[in-house]
Amino acid sequence: MLAADLALPLTATPAEWIAVALADLDAVHQDHLHCERKAAQSALSLVRSYPERADLVLAVARLAHEETAHVVQMSQLLARRGLVGTLDHGDEYAAALRDLCRRAEPDRLLDRLLVFALIEARSAERLALLAAAISDPATASLYGALAAAEVRHRDTFLELAAQVAAEAWRDRLTELARGEAAIVASLPIRPRIH
Amino acid sequence: MLAADLALPLTATPAEWIAVALADLDAVHQDHLHCERKAAQSALSLVRSYPERADLVLAVARLAHEETAHVVQMSQLLARRGLVGTLDHGDEYAAALRDLCRRAEPDRLLDRLLVFALIEARSAERLALLAAAISDPATASLYGALAAAEVRHRDTFLELAAQVAAEAWRDRLTELARGEAAIVASLPIRPRIH
Repeated sequence: MLAADLALPLTATPAEWIAVALADLDAVHQDHLHCERKAAQSALSLVRSYPERADLVLAVARLAHEETAHVVQMSQLLARRGLVGTLDHGDEYAAALRDLCRRAEPDRLLDRLLVFALIEARSAERLALLAAAISDPATASLYGALAAAEVRHRDTFLELAAQVAAEAWRDRLTELARGEAAIVASLPIRPRIH
Repeated sequence: MLAADLALPLTATPAEWIAVALADLDAVHQDHLHCERKAAQSALSLVRSYPERADLVLAVARLAHEETAHVVQMSQLLARRGLVGTLDHGDEYAAALRDLCRRAEPDRLLDRLLVFALIEARSAERLALLAAAISDPATASLYGALAAAEVRHRDTFLELAAQVAAEAWRDRLTELARGEAAIVASLPIRPRIH
């Protein structure tokens, strides 16, 4: 219901990004293993923080279940391509977004949900760019499927945000999306999803 | 292959535990939601720490995928019983086990795998006690299925440990199991899994 009128105000990824990504696809695959892991961990962190919210717990537990399947798929992709995983480069993008979240409840929950929605939206955008540009059909197809899943997850987080703050969520989303755009613009363009 | 000759040296849970658990089953259910969440998070923490170990990453990502399904099932059980989740009481048991892990690699990896195996084994033991004692058939059946899954997960961790240290793992398991027994004996008996 939300997805149709969503118009999540995401800036476009800089055009140079896809060339940088294609020039070191191995690094992108290795990075994306960790992105999927961190997405699962973020969803589980909401179960830890808000166990009394039954609808939220069920929704994000299901989401984490999907993200862990993606970790399996990324680990299989690495193996197929003769790669092994590398250490996570850390998380300037997500850390900067976390800094935008207000500290006091219930604002904090709203902000976390919206930030997770923005991360899913940005991931979906870039995974779709990869799916369109990668020549190997199996790899392109996997990234296409992952992009579609991230769109669903974005909408899950937005629906949860709308349940938490039926009035305030859209304006706050616009503010946080502005913050996200500034973070993306401030970070170097690298062969990573974020 | 390992499971058959496993003889994981786990002490028996004190006989009083099941009476305490049955006297406040709601608390046990609420606690176990978090146990499943933390099991998923622990598995994902190994992906973060050891991404270069392809077999380990695949095995623990699959395990996390199962654990997140259990989080879904526990959240559904709470809803069916008219309960909502409560905040995690914390984790003296797991924290004490973590303190037994050596700091330097590769000992650290071996110890983490063996400690996770012991936690799964202890969970399996107690979930089986619950499955045998709970009168509601649907709840008993869920705990029985979860206990069986924990036995498989225990063996996954032991197999990974045997890959890391083919010689040393059995003796170290005996040592850590002794530590686990001391930790169990030192903790109060509460309506929780650990």
